[in-house]
Amino acid sequence: MYSAPERYLETQRERILDDLYAFLRIPSVSTDPAHRSDVREAARWVEARLRQAGPLTVELVETGGHPVVYAEWLGAPDRPTILIYGHYDVQPPDPLEHWLSPPFAPEMRDGRIYARGASDDKGPMLIPVAVAEAFFATEGALPVNVKLLFEGEEEIGSPHLDGVVAAYASRLAASYALSADGAMWRASEPSISVGSRGLVALDIAVRGPRSDLHSGRHGGAVQNPLHALATLVASLHASDGRVAVAGFYDAARELNSTERATIAQLAFDDEAYRVSIGVPALFGEAGYTTLERQWLRPTLEVNGLGGGYQGPGSKTVVPASAHAKISCRLTPGQRPDDILALLRRHIDTHTPVGVEAEVTVHPGSAPAYRIDGAHPGLRVARRVLHDLYGRPPLDVFIGGTLPVAETFKRVLGIDTVFFSFSTADEDFHAPNEFFRASRLWDGLSAWTRYWLAAGHTGVEDEVAIHPR
Amino acid sequence: MYSAPERYLETQRERILDDLYAFLRIPSVSTDPAHRSDVREAARWVEARLRQAGPLTVELVETGGHPVVYAEWLGAPDRPTILIYGHYDVQPPDPLEHWLSPPFAPEMRDGRIYARGASDDKGPMLIPVAVAEAFFATEGALPVNVKLLFEGEEEIGSPHLDGVVAAYASRLAASYALSADGAMWRASEPSISVGSRGLVALDIAVRGPRSDLHSGRHGGAVQNPLHALATLVASLHASDGRVAVAGFYDAARELNSTERATIAQLAFDDEAYRVSIGVPALFGEAGYTTLERQWLRPTLEVNGLGGGYQGPGSKTVVPASAHAKISCRLTPGQRPDDILALLRRHIDTHTPVGVEAEVTVHPGSAPAYRIDGAHPGLRVARRVLHDLYGRPPLDVFIGGTLPVAETFKRVLGIDTVFFSFSTADEDFHAPNEFFRASRLWDGLSAWTRYWLAAGHTGVEDEVAIHPR
Repeated sequence: MYSAPERYLETQRERILDDLYAFLRIPSVSTDPAHRSDVREAARWVEARLRQAGPLTVELVETGGHPVVYAEWLGAPDRPTILIYGHYDVQPPDPLEHWLSPPFAPEMRDGRIYARGASDDKGPMLIPVAVAEAFFATEGALPVNVKLLFEGEEEIGSPHLDGVVAAYASRLAASYALSADGAMWRASEPSISVGSRGLVALDIAVRGPRSDLHSGRHGGAVQNPLHALATLVASLHASDGRVAVAGFYDAARELNSTERATIAQLAFDDEAYRVSIGVPALFGEAGYTTLERQWLRPTLEVNGLGGGYQGPGSKTVVPASAHAKISCRLTPGQRPDDILALLRRHIDTHTPVGVEAEVTVHPGSAPAYRIDGAHPGLRVARRVLHDLYGRPPLDVFIGGTLPVAETFKRVLGIDTVFFSFSTADEDFHAPNEFFRASRLWDGLSAWTRYWLAAGHTGVEDEVAIHPR
Repeated sequence: MYSAPERYLETQRERILDDLYAFLRIPSVSTDPAHRSDVREAARWVEARLRQAGPLTVELVETGGHPVVYAEWLGAPDRPTILIYGHYDVQPPDPLEHWLSPPFAPEMRDGRIYARGASDDKGPMLIPVAVAEAFFATEGALPVNVKLLFEGEEEIGSPHLDGVVAAYASRLAASYALSADGAMWRASEPSISVGSRGLVALDIAVRGPRSDLHSGRHGGAVQNPLHALATLVASLHASDGRVAVAGFYDAARELNSTERATIAQLAFDDEAYRVSIGVPALFGEAGYTTLERQWLRPTLEVNGLGGGYQGPGSKTVVPASAHAKISCRLTPGQRPDDILALLRRHIDTHTPVGVEAEVTVHPGSAPAYRIDGAHPGLRVARRVLHDLYGRPPLDVFIGGTLPVAETFKRVLGIDTVFFSFSTADEDFHAPNEFFRASRLWDGLSAWTRYWLAAGHTGVEDEVAIHPR
């Protein structure tokens, strides 16, 4: 029972792969100023690819940072309007030495497309573009109205997205958002995300002597910034794994019965997970299962530490400074600004004598996100996934952060349905990121069916539009 | 009352500077395998410079690591024989961005020669070479027999020096050693070192997951190697600055009355020192003065920490591993192997659950060194310095480590007199290392006078030679 657009997509697989490879070759690392022009090149590439897809209105929107690429087709006035989201920027590829093939030279191995951004999010975000092309090529029109918004700052916390969405609020009005970002839980079974954790991130710089000192001459007379940073970082957790920042858990809502039940029905094997990531033991806050800790409990993680001599051999130095990068995942109830204030207070009160600590907050704070399990957009997603995979999808949460959902909710008043075809095991944010080619083909079918179902089942009747 | 060699040296200042600059341009960073051929080039340069100085027997000695350059002149059979020591390797220049001029492009500013190695030890070690040339040029002979040994591994703990000294023991027989390495305390007044601290150094690698993980997905479920390393490093000290490794102080001999008296007679202003290095407060083990902590108390310093993402912006990662470099300065009584065993035990017992820690010991362990304050070589040094500077030199200690002194004592049975003309404020091991040109000229006079005095005052009568 394939539709004409699906048959069209099957004939185009080679060209779609070529397109994706070309897209993956652009090192659009948004966090690194050295890649600024590469990020823009990726935006231009997306813009051109959208124009090629059919009679979309396409626009490159300047933001003050990396641009947003926006496109729309509103040729079905009596059908629902869906706001589609994805991002064309990628994480840094470090550590480079662990990649088996270069991060920006995509390579297919065992049915997997290896490249930085293959899974997060260039592969998944190309799906709606190809699906739009398939409808235009076979039907001359789409079954729903679409507004496609692709940003270039997701990996740095979307610092300009709020402003763009606010400025374009009336133009972005839609029944709900459908995100090509936000991986499914597992490749082996379909799933639907009903919530994600929030995020705050900051850097700590600890400064001691004006310049690096010889540790033989000066050692013992001054506070070593590396000792001080280690002490400060160690103070952030208790030995049982709980975050030791005063007040950190105070506003975090406890797991409710729906959340506990959602997780309880999932088959999860701690030992298989432990082996898969290669750690000697799992570790974390007592009183919660592994999935509860990953999805529903707040965390504080150090993402980077550095200072002094890190090259081969030894160098006997007391360095002038030392640095840490820290991020927290937040759960419902925790407000980003409140958590940042608690962190600042902890750092102020726990900085050892003899050094000074300076905090720099990263842009892109976001609270946790929840969507009603009965949302009509989720119902369409469940039907399509059940149909495609022959079994009902699981309800799951996302441990990571998708600030766009919170932005769309707050600024546009709409919910976001996550409908990505990447899966959480695809090593995004790590070396050897990959996207399963089979999931690319699944995604093309699923998005085609989603748009058909959304266009023919009167979503308008079920979802209140929030024009602004 | 200048001698002929001193007058000769005054006429050669421009050429001596040119020589030093050429020497400084060779980036002989012994710790970095990428500089291996540069280190050898520096050895060849020293070898050629020695041949140019006069009728010395010169030899490049292979060691299995970086070569030793050896030269001797034994034309005064009734005079004492002095073993002269220096090193031609240098510390790494990192962090490069803090240098005002490139580290291997020497530049004179305000009477200071700026370059990596200018003060430690290329400037000081060129002094005896130039002095030998001056004697040969003016007198045709030296006033003492000399054996010059210049090594290329001092900055990595002299891993092959022991073997070379043992293999050449009979050839190296001498009344005592005179070291061109080992900075004087201050530029403003002459000083003589009567002891130095020992050294052990090791790397800690903390390993968690097989590869880097996304901290959103996995955060909260596994021990983060950066948390674990911070906790482990923090556990090495108590908050009062004392080393918290069990047994660390047990064998450390308490300060004796001579040591306390030596330090008590020195003028040292804590506040001026604090301002000079630019720290908010001094810090260290309670119950000891700043100089006592720097010179006579054992310490444990972290020289480098690293792991995770350290670039611009943020990357939400739980890294696979994290690393620390640690070194301890030892005082009399502490045996390097015992201290290493205590450190290993501490790391074993303090590694948090969920990760594994691996320890790698650096070569070049050395115990602390002491020389008798009445040693005849020290008496010559005191007389020369008093004569040159118009006041008696101070007795001081060296907070750093000069393992060569312990090697010469243990293998050859001789003491080492430190007679360097660098000073401890010259930022060796840090950016913008410099050597005062005035101290270069002072050193040339002082070494000339030292050899004259040692040759004419019957050191043979005072010092027992230890032929082996």
